[in-house]
Amino acid sequence: MTENKVRLGIIGLGAEGGMYAGLIADGKVPNMSIGAISDIDAAKKARADELNVPFYEDYLAMIESGDVDAIVTCVPHYLHPEMGIAALQRGVHTLLEKPVGVYTKQAREVIDLAASKPELTFGVFFNQRTNPLYVDLKNLIDSGELGALRHTSWIITNWWRPQGYYDQSGWRATWGGEGGGVLVNQAPHQLDLWQWMCGIPKSCFAKLSFGFRRDIAVEDEVNALVDFGDGATGHFMTATHDLVGTDRLEILFDKGKIVVDDSKTVTITRLKTSEQELSKSLGMEDVMKLFMGQMDPGEYYETETKEYESVWGLQHATVLQNFAANVLDGTELIAPGPDGINGVRLANAMHLSAWTGEEVDMVDFDEERYLAELNQRIRSEGKFAERS
Amino acid sequence: MTENKVRLGIIGLGAEGGMYAGLIADGKVPNMSIGAISDIDAAKKARADELNVPFYEDYLAMIESGDVDAIVTCVPHYLHPEMGIAALQRGVHTLLEKPVGVYTKQAREVIDLAASKPELTFGVFFNQRTNPLYVDLKNLIDSGELGALRHTSWIITNWWRPQGYYDQSGWRATWGGEGGGVLVNQAPHQLDLWQWMCGIPKSCFAKLSFGFRRDIAVEDEVNALVDFGDGATGHFMTATHDLVGTDRLEILFDKGKIVVDDSKTVTITRLKTSEQELSKSLGMEDVMKLFMGQMDPGEYYETETKEYESVWGLQHATVLQNFAANVLDGTELIAPGPDGINGVRLANAMHLSAWTGEEVDMVDFDEERYLAELNQRIRSEGKFAERS
Repeated sequence: MTENKVRLGIIGLGAEGGMYAGLIADGKVPNMSIGAISDIDAAKKARADELNVPFYEDYLAMIESGDVDAIVTCVPHYLHPEMGIAALQRGVHTLLEKPVGVYTKQAREVIDLAASKPELTFGVFFNQRTNPLYVDLKNLIDSGELGALRHTSWIITNWWRPQGYYDQSGWRATWGGEGGGVLVNQAPHQLDLWQWMCGIPKSCFAKLSFGFRRDIAVEDEVNALVDFGDGATGHFMTATHDLVGTDRLEILFDKGKIVVDDSKTVTITRLKTSEQELSKSLGMEDVMKLFMGQMDPGEYYETETKEYESVWGLQHATVLQNFAANVLDGTELIAPGPDGINGVRLANAMHLSAWTGEEVDMVDFDEERYLAELNQRIRSEGKFAERS
Repeated sequence: MTENKVRLGIIGLGAEGGMYAGLIADGKVPNMSIGAISDIDAAKKARADELNVPFYEDYLAMIESGDVDAIVTCVPHYLHPEMGIAALQRGVHTLLEKPVGVYTKQAREVIDLAASKPELTFGVFFNQRTNPLYVDLKNLIDSGELGALRHTSWIITNWWRPQGYYDQSGWRATWGGEGGGVLVNQAPHQLDLWQWMCGIPKSCFAKLSFGFRRDIAVEDEVNALVDFGDGATGHFMTATHDLVGTDRLEILFDKGKIVVDDSKTVTITRLKTSEQELSKSLGMEDVMKLFMGQMDPGEYYETETKEYESVWGLQHATVLQNFAANVLDGTELIAPGPDGINGVRLANAMHLSAWTGEEVDMVDFDEERYLAELNQRIRSEGKFAERS
């Protein structure tokens, strides 16, 4: 550490890595400096020179150089846990890009290793967890004011990606190169936020369409149901082929309701008493009034609507700053690395359900079966090595 | 027929039957008169006397009296097909209240009988099919302008019913007396409209909660997925315990999108070219622009928003008038009786999936298995006779 700053090693100087480098260079992350940059593309050295930081083509050489206290992995998904393991083994703090792995077995390996090294900070880049809108909702739900979950639905189809996006490189939208489609690449933030707010599902049944409206091997269409236990259920729908995408989240509780439109407008309804108590307290006369349109349900609840501003760059800077603060003084992590496995498991369960036509147990998730099914698809592609 | 009017026999003078009597008496259905009224409650004769029409305690006596050309069945669900069969067998035109049956086997019996009597009019009371909003959408979809279905979701939870509603009578919300909960009583209109517009699903997987937030035997919570084939899927969520209910329908097509809020506000997006063609036509440069926020997707589509007025009474009068017109001059029926089985099958498939934990085949629907499962629940209740 230099001058109470964590020296970050950025692995992969693409769109994300470049953004993080810019945020740190511009002073947006006061407790962090760029320790070094590594990229397999030697041409990226020019940018490292501009920033006046060391450049490595080999990320292992960077980790071992002593130039960095921590790393962030801005590389294809399959590499996240592999590079995390390499860093943790060498005593380097690790911030993994989402997802923390493509399949749970792989995610578990890096999580287990991190657990054995409590002196090292291990985080996952869930920047949406710093979005004030979701922070407020998480706090409201955790306060217990709205009571127990009844049901939820998130339609998140504003991930429009034209065919040209998929044709950019040979690994994209393949089983062997990327390990999935919209569930692995675009929707992990929502898969995380949903479980962060509503809890971890116990089972999942999903309908996915693979190469539905895009010429790809993986899913561009997802319609899924989950079971949270105790009668509470959830629905999740996502796609990359809706030009005028929807982002609409609805969560019903015993004592209230949350509706979020476009990750911007939040409508919170708070019941004055629990809905079940209210239901029991009404007599036949009230029921008649209800049907005659003479009952005003509005007297039983209050509704609040809030608008939030979009703050993308700020989110990423906040995650980096929180990660560095954990390294420096133990400040609680917003997104601890082990949390990352929940989104991976849910995405895996959706794949597995679609492949097998069965409802998938997520409490005792069969990760070997998932890996075998994934490898079968990698084998059929014939372009990438199978995974273990 | 008297003076070119169909003489309707109203079976059951409760809320619905009373409304129909009022509409006809007030001249809102010019091609129909009240032929007679029947009700097992002798006290209802007073209203028949007011209207100056014959009254029967026995509906069969009314059917055989010669006073009526047609009947409508405003009675508990299980009786709809039974009374329809009795009427058709006696040469009387039949308008069944929804649902046309509680289980498909029962619905099929009345539909098969009607098919053998083409000289008789056989309709189902899907008044929502006369709602101008849904008529416009049905015509738009059938025109082919929006292309093939991709996915759809209907959240319809504004069927709030307090416990007092269920406690009104012993048959309500029981397996033997009503045959289901929100799927059989409140949601049949949406189950019909959804399939009318989007097509008939090929399979269904559903999570239902029985007596979830109400003290009832049947379902007050439904979260279901359907498969329309060719990769297109749907989601349907309904409940009777959401005090501030949602009514939101979304349908995505190859060339456009429909969103309906509160069965009132319709937003139609029309793409200038099919989304897949557009996706293929964009090069790497366009993709870069998209990610830089420099691409305006708005240049590729047009959006129209329409508001519709609510017109409940008019809907019911329109169904009666259309039914009578079919009797008198063969005018095409808005809701032919055989269409009624689709909603019954979908509700049955949701029950069966929830009971068995399996995805249910709807093309080759196992109606005997459904009936066996239903009878098992009727037996456990111990209050009503099993069905056959």
